[in-house]
Order: sequence, then C-alpha cells, then structure tokens
Amino acid sequence: MAKNIVWQEYQITKNDREVRNNHKASVLWFTGYSGSGKSTLANAVAKELFKKEIQTFSLDGDNVRHGLNKDLGFSDLDRKENIRRISEVAKLFAESGMIITTAFISPFKEDRDFAREIIGDDFIEIFVDTPLEICKSRDPKGLYQKALNGEIKNFTGLDSPYEIPENPEIKIKTESLSVEKCVEKIINELLKREIF
Amino acid sequence: MAKNIVWQEYQITKNDREVRNNHKASVLWFTGYSGSGKSTLANAVAKELFKKEIQTFSLDGDNVRHGLNKDLGFSDLDRKENIRRISEVAKLFAESGMIITTAFISPFKEDRDFAREIIGDDFIEIFVDTPLEICKSRDPKGLYQKALNGEIKNFTGLDSPYEIPENPEIKIKTESLSVEKCVEKIINELLKREIF
Repeated sequence: MAKNIVWQEYQITKNDREVRNNHKASVLWFTGYSGSGKSTLANAVAKELFKKEIQTFSLDGDNVRHGLNKDLGFSDLDRKENIRRISEVAKLFAESGMIITTAFISPFKEDRDFAREIIGDDFIEIFVDTPLEICKSRDPKGLYQKALNGEIKNFTGLDSPYEIPENPEIKIKTESLSVEKCVEKIINELLKREIF
Repeated sequence: MAKNIVWQEYQITKNDREVRNNHKASVLWFTGYSGSGKSTLANAVAKELFKKEIQTFSLDGDNVRHGLNKDLGFSDLDRKENIRRISEVAKLFAESGMIITTAFISPFKEDRDFAREIIGDDFIEIFVDTPLEICKSRDPKGLYQKALNGEIKNFTGLDSPYEIPENPEIKIKTESLSVEKCVEKIINELLKREIF
C-alpha cells in the first residue's frame, strides 16, 4: 500500500446484497399490547422466511434490553432512546440486506413515526390488533397481574395509553386466526409488496 | 390463537444460520491508527467475502457515528459507550450468522478487551500495524494536520496514546504489502480458523 496511491474502495451496496439474496431488505415492525402476540408472530414469520431461504433476524426485548439497551430505564427520555437505537440497528440490518422483525410494544405514535423516519422506505408497520381484554386474560408473563397489584407503573393499557396505529401497512387480528393463518396473511402482504 | 394454548415458539439459532449460510459467524475487529488502512482493509475483506457468497457487513465510523452513536461525543465516558454499543451491535450481527468487519481506532486495550468480553468467541482482533510515521504522511483525511494545528484534541498518536495489541489473532503490516496481499493473508487466517 504505497503512499499517495488512491486505493480503489468499493463498498458493497444494499442493492448488491438484495440481488445476491434474491429478496429485498425490510423492517417488519410489530406493535401491539403486551400479550397481543407480537413476539410469537415476529418469530413465526422469521421462521417462515428462513424456510424460504430468506436472510432474516429478529430484534426483541430479550436480545436488546439485556444488551445494547441495558443502560436504559423506562423514563420518557429512555423510552424514546430505546426506540431510536432499535430503529438505528434495524436500519443497519436492512442495509445488510436482511428482512428483520422487531417486536416492541411501541405504544406511542410519535415513537413509531420516529422509527419510520429513521428507517425510511423499508419500514413496514404491523399492528397486532388484539383487544386489551384478551391480552389481559392471556397475560403470558403475568405482567398485567403485577401491574394491577401496583408492582409495575406506567403499564400500557392500564395506566399508560396505547395509541392505535392509524395507517399500518399490515393489521392482524389474532383473536380469530391461528398463528399459521396470521403468518400466511403477513407473508402474502410481503409478496404483494414484492419484498420477495 | 386460543387463550391458554402454549404456542410452539421456535427461535432460529445462530447454529441454524451458520449451517444455512455454510460459514461460521465472526466479528473481525480491525484496530490501528487513523490512516493505518483499517477501513480500506475491512472493506476489501468484506468485498472478498461477498465474492465467496459469504454473508457479510461492515460497521465503521460512517454508518455508526452518524446514526446509532450520533448522541456520543469524545469524552472518556462517551468513548467507552461508543465501543460498548458497537460491540453489542456486532454481537447481534454475529448472532444473525454474518461475518462482520468493524473499523475503529479503538486505541485502548481496556476497550478492546471489553469488546472481546461482550462478543465472546466470535471476536477476532486484527491489528493493522502501520507505523505512526507512515500514517501521518498518508493523512488521507487531513486529520493529523488538523490535530497538529490544534484543531483536534486527544488525537491518537499525537496527544493521546495507542496501546499496541499484545496478542491479536491477526497482525497485518501494511507498509510492505499490497491491499490484495493483506486481504489474502487475512482470508488465509480465517480459513485456518475454519470460519469458512
């Protein structure tokens, strides 16, 4: 590497990766109440994509809150920073050519719009539209009970609002469909959008 | 999704992805002075991996400092947080099955050890061992000149130290080798480690 020689630098582009992978990059942003089935659906969709030889990865509370965002609490500022970092990481994954699923309650329109702004055209908002009463009765992690006992404050659906997405790219009603049917519906929506 | 049914949740594992991709996941952590050739080599290695049908992505100042880490400055605390976040994101990419290259000066042993601790066995430290005098004379971004003019403080190699890696997995001397030869050496080291 002699001095003064301008090195040929070629950055592999997102388009190069999409062509190679034979599918577009995308961020599938699942939003909904705790217990709505966001993570279940995000995982099930990822599994189906993987079967289809698609490059896919999932970001969720498990791998983000204990790692990248473990310095963040639940104040308004930290909540916003949580969404910002997830969005920036999701964007990097999209840049790498992957279809990435994220599963976070993300109850505020402002935050989801912020995610959309950061991620851009690859952002696909999927509203997991399960009624609060069903989520409460499922209560898979016992969190509603804890919140009702006063052990958790600012719990979405109890003492903190969930702002219903107005124009999500995809809306899924889980109470009347099996997981398989929900996945099928999402996959069909992605096909319609020519993601793969 | 009837209430009380335990949903079959299957998370795609890193091993599943490695088997599918036909290569191991890995984080190639390039460290060295500004102007040492870190980014050039990280990009050139990524390009070579891409040619070999390997899933690869690069994290560098361009896509991290303007996005995920744009809230961070250059204080000691921010510098440490910068490395922590990069390491956590690199770990997520490794979890996704990719071979990822990172190109950051990362001058302090403590920080590189922290990265190694976060990332674990996938971490491969590549010391781009270009003598400071050569980096200064290359000065591809004019940063040494700015630092010498007093426009940048705490510049690595001038008024801030670079702690030489003691046991890097790979060491590359760029002053006597072409980019192609450097890349070849790194690829051979990865083959030796059975990364692919």
